[in-house]
Amino acid sequence: MSKSTLPRLNALREEMGKAGITAFIIPGTDPHQSEYYATHWAARTWITGFNGSAGTAVVTTNQAGLWTDSRYFLQAAQQLEGSGFDLFKEGLPDTPTIEQWLLTTLPQGATIAIDGTLFGATKAAAMKQNFERHGFRFVSDFTPFDTIWNERPSIPKNKIFIHEEKYSGESITAKMGRIMEQVHREDAEALLLAALDEIAWAFNIRGTDVECNPVVICYAYIDDSRRILFIDNDKIDETAHRYLQQNGVEILPYGNIFDFVEALPADKRVFVDSNKINYTLLNKMSAVPVTGQSPIALLKSVKNETQLAGTREAMIRDGVALVRFFRWLDQNIDSGQVTEITVAEKLREFRSQQSLYVGESFATIAGFNAHGAIVHYSATPESNVTLTRDGFLLIDSGAQYLDGTTDITRTVSLGNLTPRQKRDFTLVMKGHIALATCHYPQGTRGAQLDALARHFLWDDHLNYLHGTGHGVGHFLNVHEGPQNIRLEENPTPLMPGMITSNEPGLYRTGEYGIRCENLVLTVDDEQNEFGTFYRFETLTLFPFDTEALDLSIMSEKEIEWLNSYHEMVYDRLSPMLNADEQQWLRHKTSAI
Amino acid sequence: MSKSTLPRLNALREEMGKAGITAFIIPGTDPHQSEYYATHWAARTWITGFNGSAGTAVVTTNQAGLWTDSRYFLQAAQQLEGSGFDLFKEGLPDTPTIEQWLLTTLPQGATIAIDGTLFGATKAAAMKQNFERHGFRFVSDFTPFDTIWNERPSIPKNKIFIHEEKYSGESITAKMGRIMEQVHREDAEALLLAALDEIAWAFNIRGTDVECNPVVICYAYIDDSRRILFIDNDKIDETAHRYLQQNGVEILPYGNIFDFVEALPADKRVFVDSNKINYTLLNKMSAVPVTGQSPIALLKSVKNETQLAGTREAMIRDGVALVRFFRWLDQNIDSGQVTEITVAEKLREFRSQQSLYVGESFATIAGFNAHGAIVHYSATPESNVTLTRDGFLLIDSGAQYLDGTTDITRTVSLGNLTPRQKRDFTLVMKGHIALATCHYPQGTRGAQLDALARHFLWDDHLNYLHGTGHGVGHFLNVHEGPQNIRLEENPTPLMPGMITSNEPGLYRTGEYGIRCENLVLTVDDEQNEFGTFYRFETLTLFPFDTEALDLSIMSEKEIEWLNSYHEMVYDRLSPMLNADEQQWLRHKTSAI
Repeated sequence: MSKSTLPRLNALREEMGKAGITAFIIPGTDPHQSEYYATHWAARTWITGFNGSAGTAVVTTNQAGLWTDSRYFLQAAQQLEGSGFDLFKEGLPDTPTIEQWLLTTLPQGATIAIDGTLFGATKAAAMKQNFERHGFRFVSDFTPFDTIWNERPSIPKNKIFIHEEKYSGESITAKMGRIMEQVHREDAEALLLAALDEIAWAFNIRGTDVECNPVVICYAYIDDSRRILFIDNDKIDETAHRYLQQNGVEILPYGNIFDFVEALPADKRVFVDSNKINYTLLNKMSAVPVTGQSPIALLKSVKNETQLAGTREAMIRDGVALVRFFRWLDQNIDSGQVTEITVAEKLREFRSQQSLYVGESFATIAGFNAHGAIVHYSATPESNVTLTRDGFLLIDSGAQYLDGTTDITRTVSLGNLTPRQKRDFTLVMKGHIALATCHYPQGTRGAQLDALARHFLWDDHLNYLHGTGHGVGHFLNVHEGPQNIRLEENPTPLMPGMITSNEPGLYRTGEYGIRCENLVLTVDDEQNEFGTFYRFETLTLFPFDTEALDLSIMSEKEIEWLNSYHEMVYDRLSPMLNADEQQWLRHKTSAI
Repeated sequence: MSKSTLPRLNALREEMGKAGITAFIIPGTDPHQSEYYATHWAARTWITGFNGSAGTAVVTTNQAGLWTDSRYFLQAAQQLEGSGFDLFKEGLPDTPTIEQWLLTTLPQGATIAIDGTLFGATKAAAMKQNFERHGFRFVSDFTPFDTIWNERPSIPKNKIFIHEEKYSGESITAKMGRIMEQVHREDAEALLLAALDEIAWAFNIRGTDVECNPVVICYAYIDDSRRILFIDNDKIDETAHRYLQQNGVEILPYGNIFDFVEALPADKRVFVDSNKINYTLLNKMSAVPVTGQSPIALLKSVKNETQLAGTREAMIRDGVALVRFFRWLDQNIDSGQVTEITVAEKLREFRSQQSLYVGESFATIAGFNAHGAIVHYSATPESNVTLTRDGFLLIDSGAQYLDGTTDITRTVSLGNLTPRQKRDFTLVMKGHIALATCHYPQGTRGAQLDALARHFLWDDHLNYLHGTGHGVGHFLNVHEGPQNIRLEENPTPLMPGMITSNEPGLYRTGEYGIRCENLVLTVDDEQNEFGTFYRFETLTLFPFDTEALDLSIMSEKEIEWLNSYHEMVYDRLSPMLNADEQQWLRHKTSAI
């Protein structure tokens, strides 16, 4: 049985034939290099049927392939069946990269095409060089989906709204001053922006163009005299218009960015982050590009006092919603009616009752036992299971509030844990606590701390393959840079004001998954003759499941930390709870 | 009062004037980029009077400066007095780099000179680019010391000797096969070598040209048909000659390397490590340079079974010498005659009585109390103090044996330790033990493990500013790459067969220093569905001072490790000791 996507593949090959193109590379992103993007740009999903968040398709005249990573091997295999696309499992020793595969598969002199707006400039330039060095032609302006995708969703026209200064804590003008200071330091006169979260932060705007990420589809250009947003005018209501005008922001149509950069003076030095700006845009620009890491990345990652106060308030509301949800779960699980999907729905319902709630910060992961071992699991009607009092339930979820973004994972015992399950859970918690309580000198990078969260697992010859921590935006993307805590090197040090997740885990395929996640804030600690020291302050407020612990392998200090964390959780949340909820939380936070 | 070096500075300025040179940069290294080098190349010491291991001098027509790091601030300040050289303290926020200083100090159009043989090619090329971009002239063939240094020591003519295969474990021919395999993998046909330890390893040769580092001054060139050593013929006796000839090694004069590379075919692809090859040599080469990390670095760092067996034997002999030394110290300290210098001498004496002993692997650091806080302290007749039963004695020392290189630091209580001293010592030991006992997945880099050794100190807002571990050669340089354990990123992972030091420390300026160092070997641990895991095997055999421990802050596991390490030390060393020595060691290794 062939899939409904097959005619699309044929239509694409026809277009390729007309244009003299031998191979076409279709990534899963938008012109802003977004991790999540509007369906207008979901061409890779449209043509392959595979809807995972990571994956690149390649179509040649007689072959087609989809490259994705281990998180999606199973899902991709199922969704690609009959699609005409072969699955290439990234990261396996025998899997060629897309470039290797094309270089060995295509005939000499073949033409390889991309839509240059969908590739970061650095990446596409490297591809071009590699292909041309091997005697291929490289075309970067092939846009067949404009023609063959009949019912293609349009670019969202949703209204933007202002992220008020009582939440963002800083005016556009103040931000522009700090941004241009950095731009001048790089010996540049202007800054060209394509990353949606950077523009949203700089201009105090938010929107609903992309699910879970409250960004707005637009470009921006900043110099000493101009602040231009390239955005469709009908997305801007009167309030927003007035605020932007008051802050000296000009509005130009979204599509005008290309003509604008083409018309820039040839000697103007314009700063661009060539990993974030798309290839087409950079190539059109007539000015002198000054490349480097966008100055906004670091400015945005260091939260101000208003943002931190808001985040602390949001954590209380989020914690209250979680208390209500987990209490509901306790009371309803024996009904035999609670499934993984119910969990996600109920959780959203309790959160949505909180003030300043805007939406989820990502699709809830609720995985019972074996499903918890699938790191990016999202229950579908086909996969959905009913919860029983046996084993682990892993819930990774978060919300967007006007005053902050949350992201929390709890793994709770539904009953009958084996000693190995408890030991595994406790090893993960020991890593979580080691990171939560560590002190570290100024200049420390996340990669230096990563092992603190892992070494208890390593000692048992266990490990998890995802990062330990990612940066978190302020009412913005739940994944943001530049800092993180991973085994891979990242030169950005952890700085006071940065919010990062602390989420070690363990996944036993086919059995269960464990992840314990709070958000932590880097704060000042002490200064002495040995240097300046920082530590983490834990922001997230909800108890860990003490019933899943093997106390025999915990140190006194670890138990002390957990008890005092739970005491803080109770103190902060209980004033917002009714007597029954307080009692439930008192029990869940009682000292061990 | 002016120093005896002043006339030298004047003579140099005269030469500079004749050659039209405005500024001359004088580094502390040799044409092989060696950390330690023969006095023939000690021009920086000759002209400044400063003899520290790290430092670069700069002379202009009317100014002169010496740049060095914090280890040498005090020593340099003293030695530079009256020399005409100002001290520039590297690493302080207000200190310009040499390049910044020259760019702001020199008149427009000035000529800056180096001796290009004394700079790594990458470094010198970057300097040239920077200077020329700012409108200066750059000259790389200025060699005034040939003229003005009248009693300049000649290049050592010491005889080389063969590192027999019963120690090295691999023939030249076998090594050449593995080297050329790597060279071909880099798409090159030949390899040009300047790093002395790489050549010594590849050709199984050793020498006495440089103190403590048993290397031989030479260059080498390898391709599929030729293995050439550029070395003065009178350094090679008949035995060595025969062995080299049997292995197809050609001998050409040391100085011929420049003509040789100039005559290479223009299309020959020659691999060079441009950080290790000097600028002049690379520029002379007519062939196509293929640059990257020398393939020998990694091959050399992974020791074979013969090398490991030899190292384990060397550790026993080194441990026996240490037992005899520390027992002697116990028995003689009350005489009031034991000084820091005596300690270094006695230690060398006991080691030299061991079989296969060749010499020290570096100058012994023996620092009593405040001197122990000077990380690279070396007692001089002026600084030397007599030991008393009060405080800490830090001894960092090592030896070259034909079958292995040792490097060990022990910090011992001479008496009357304060609670803070014991706490400090124990925090350092906790870090040492955490690293010694950790397990880690394949691919782990030293920078990921570094924090395991530091975090107990960090928790007390303490730190040490040196690396935690360096690679160690096999009867070769005590510092070798490519792996290390430091806070700085280094992409080389720790691999089975690598020997690395484990040496956390703590230094309270003016009070005392603590460092606890063993050598550890990366070994296979376990392989399962979570990956391949490695661990460290501790190679060094000598007890830590249990009297300096604060047991109240040690975990059961830490105490267990220490007791079992001490048990192993006793088991391995006692068969080589007499009854009195055994008794002494039994006491020092008794369980706590």
